[in-house]
Amino acid sequence: MKATIPAATVERLPVYLRCLSDLAATEHRCSSDDVAAAAGVKSAQVRKDFSYLGSYGTRGVGYDIEDLRVELRKVLGLTRKHPVMIVGAGNLGFALANYKGVAKWGFDIAAIVDIATPKVGRTVNGLTVESVHDLADIVAERDIEIGIITVPASSAQSVVERLADAGVTSILNFAPTVIRPPEGVTIRRVDIAVSLGILAFYMNADS
Amino acid sequence: MKATIPAATVERLPVYLRCLSDLAATEHRCSSDDVAAAAGVKSAQVRKDFSYLGSYGTRGVGYDIEDLRVELRKVLGLTRKHPVMIVGAGNLGFALANYKGVAKWGFDIAAIVDIATPKVGRTVNGLTVESVHDLADIVAERDIEIGIITVPASSAQSVVERLADAGVTSILNFAPTVIRPPEGVTIRRVDIAVSLGILAFYMNADS
Repeated sequence: MKATIPAATVERLPVYLRCLSDLAATEHRCSSDDVAAAAGVKSAQVRKDFSYLGSYGTRGVGYDIEDLRVELRKVLGLTRKHPVMIVGAGNLGFALANYKGVAKWGFDIAAIVDIATPKVGRTVNGLTVESVHDLADIVAERDIEIGIITVPASSAQSVVERLADAGVTSILNFAPTVIRPPEGVTIRRVDIAVSLGILAFYMNADS
Repeated sequence: MKATIPAATVERLPVYLRCLSDLAATEHRCSSDDVAAAAGVKSAQVRKDFSYLGSYGTRGVGYDIEDLRVELRKVLGLTRKHPVMIVGAGNLGFALANYKGVAKWGFDIAAIVDIATPKVGRTVNGLTVESVHDLADIVAERDIEIGIITVPASSAQSVVERLADAGVTSILNFAPTVIRPPEGVTIRRVDIAVSLGILAFYMNADS
């Protein structure tokens, strides 16, 4: 069934999971309107997206929040831990190693590495910065599945190739550059300028 | 015209701008296929989105990259500088103050403030950390338009209200929490767990 979920829906599923986790603090059931308001999409879209999970809700009663969360975690593959390595122990790497709200989704920051000798040995959130020279060994030992790239733009491509050679096929890139994905590797980019650009549009549209 | 651009298209416009800036390094013209491949969407979507800009391309010749970039910058309101304040001078605040690729889109990090006295006076990328107590004065003096929140989840709501009271209506939130937007305030959230969740889906789908 998973292969039939459209990419645009996949992009929204973790957003719904986040919204439902927030709603769960005070509610047991929710309507598609509640989720739509929290996620910033239309209710009809929410109902359509949830239908891919096999969840249809009940008119006048809505959806069971806990059921939906279980279903979303299952579809997203968040029912088990995913060991993560951060490459780049600068401010951003340290910030991500400390980032709350990643661990509870099962993303376990299992290593942080850097090329700079003075950074190796520093600690952050119980982790010790290790040398990038040991990257392949660490990936193998700790079953690293996801790499997070926080190195400067100029070294991002070579780091991705190094991770790919070590067998890591899922990468989240914070370096402000385009990376050519090696065969079989999925790269997502977090681009702060893009988020700011969307804000600027709405600011501009108002004035 | 701007009001008629659908929200989903708006989300893609800065991505196109990023891709075109990358393409411009080596090319003068591009096809919708080129942009689609770089942005990870379908060509038909690119052509439709560009049509909102009044850019239709020419069959067999494609689009002029520089024209498109000018048009995108104009629609997104990136033709002038937007002064930005970072609230929270932790690792993430420092990382963002140093982040390349934000300045060239016209986002000018004009201030970084923190509540913690020991942090006030530190410098990052030519900026000195100032006290959050001076937030309203700094916003007024430097015409701050956008606030970036990198404080802990527990103080995010009060910081947003403080920014809103000072007249800042566009906010990018990195705190891992949902914020109720004050009247007239637009908040976008950058949620690392959501990006990792999408990666996890595709990892899971492959196996």
